[in-house]
Amino acid sequence: MESVFINGLGLIGSSIARIIKATRPDVIVMGNDINPQNTAFMVEHHLLDQQTSFEAGSQKADCIILATPVDIIINSLEALKYLKLKPNALVTDVGSSKRMILNAADDFINSGGTFLGGHPMAGSHLTGSANGSVNMLADHTYFLVNGNATKNQVNQFKALLGSGEFNFQLVTPDQHDQIVSAISYLPHAIAFTLMNTISPELKALNVDPSVPAGGLLDTTRIAMSDSKMWTSIMNSSGDDLIQQIELFEKNLKALKTAIKRHDNDAMKRSITMAQRARQEMEDAK
Amino acid sequence: MESVFINGLGLIGSSIARIIKATRPDVIVMGNDINPQNTAFMVEHHLLDQQTSFEAGSQKADCIILATPVDIIINSLEALKYLKLKPNALVTDVGSSKRMILNAADDFINSGGTFLGGHPMAGSHLTGSANGSVNMLADHTYFLVNGNATKNQVNQFKALLGSGEFNFQLVTPDQHDQIVSAISYLPHAIAFTLMNTISPELKALNVDPSVPAGGLLDTTRIAMSDSKMWTSIMNSSGDDLIQQIELFEKNLKALKTAIKRHDNDAMKRSITMAQRARQEMEDAK
Repeated sequence: MESVFINGLGLIGSSIARIIKATRPDVIVMGNDINPQNTAFMVEHHLLDQQTSFEAGSQKADCIILATPVDIIINSLEALKYLKLKPNALVTDVGSSKRMILNAADDFINSGGTFLGGHPMAGSHLTGSANGSVNMLADHTYFLVNGNATKNQVNQFKALLGSGEFNFQLVTPDQHDQIVSAISYLPHAIAFTLMNTISPELKALNVDPSVPAGGLLDTTRIAMSDSKMWTSIMNSSGDDLIQQIELFEKNLKALKTAIKRHDNDAMKRSITMAQRARQEMEDAK
Repeated sequence: MESVFINGLGLIGSSIARIIKATRPDVIVMGNDINPQNTAFMVEHHLLDQQTSFEAGSQKADCIILATPVDIIINSLEALKYLKLKPNALVTDVGSSKRMILNAADDFINSGGTFLGGHPMAGSHLTGSANGSVNMLADHTYFLVNGNATKNQVNQFKALLGSGEFNFQLVTPDQHDQIVSAISYLPHAIAFTLMNTISPELKALNVDPSVPAGGLLDTTRIAMSDSKMWTSIMNSSGDDLIQQIELFEKNLKALKTAIKRHDNDAMKRSITMAQRARQEMEDAK
């Protein structure tokens, strides 16, 4: 792979560009973003060799990385069917909602294209090219959900991102969407809801926003995430998320019942189970 | 105040001792803990001048700080009625559940004692003397809920903790318990429930505990908190917590309905509201 085109140079797209530049300084990185501030930043910081249109970049690249919101990824896969790509061009993406994206990729694959789904497991509540970084993504899990890429193409793509030191995990679309709805969508829905519960209470009690300490701040940090992106994710992955919310509701109800009944054993069992599971994640960091 | 007795030298009690030692190196600090490792650590690190029994320490001190779990604080207030304290001795505590503690203090006050409730707003999932620190508490809010201390006694107590640079807030027991159930009890109940929802899912999907990224880890950090302490808090503050849980359940149901109906406007409104409220706390840090 000697040239890459990245469509969408926000937090993730720009971080991927940084990783490719660090891994393979010889590769020509082309890019496009609807926000001219992002492209200007990327060119100025030598993270982008060429700013191109979607069409021109896609037709010149050995690897096309779709790094926009999910609905635009789906539109792009449709548009790519009608472009004359390089014969062995690999198209990949970084979006959540892999079932939906792989469905949309079917038509593209049937029209002769090659697709490998991808999803790096990290992010930030910040947005835009300037806030991306190698460190934000590095050392994290990178899910791969294959459409029809050959083993060789998958390996070439992994090599392109070598400096990211990713923990690549090949999963099915169903596995991906279930895992991500548990470890990402549900915590976001819960953090938004926690803020929307606590904030009116504190306002009514006239409590200064500086009063809450580290515990609450950590628990709700991801509630600062981008509302446009999360509306899009909740809309495209609603069924998975609702399933997770309903499991959560059931568990919260059980804890509430234990508290109501002053059932100390049940409370302690529940807290200890949570504590051990969380400690296991801490130890695995 | 020339001498202080701290009953309970765990995370909070030992941090208070550190703050007093930094503020007033001339004050004699006495202490007691059921765990001999805690008292040994404190003496060895010159954070404690004398290890005493509960009775001896209480009778010799100008200020008695009850820094044990809530149920022991309540027993201690009962026991203090029968001890011959110094004439102007001030008794204070660091427990949550201020309504319950101030109720228990009534009898002590009626027997001639002086009580000022207190609650520093910080903590850690770690426990024990060795994990306490000035920094853990410093610069945070310290709620004061007065029983019958004079203005002068309140000021003397604040001066004793001067190096903590606390944001002291005088509130009623009701105000305290409502604020703390919103900013501390609810987030803990939610973090425990989140772990107990996600962990079995990840086990069933065979996902390694190293896969979850920063978002989930931050959201559930407080789920590593001490199970004994949190069982005790949930038991003693159950009514307040249940009220908060029910508000949370209502808000979560509203978000779920918006997702089910693909009501993007409602989702975006809810996320934006959460995001702004959380950003306000971030800016106030």
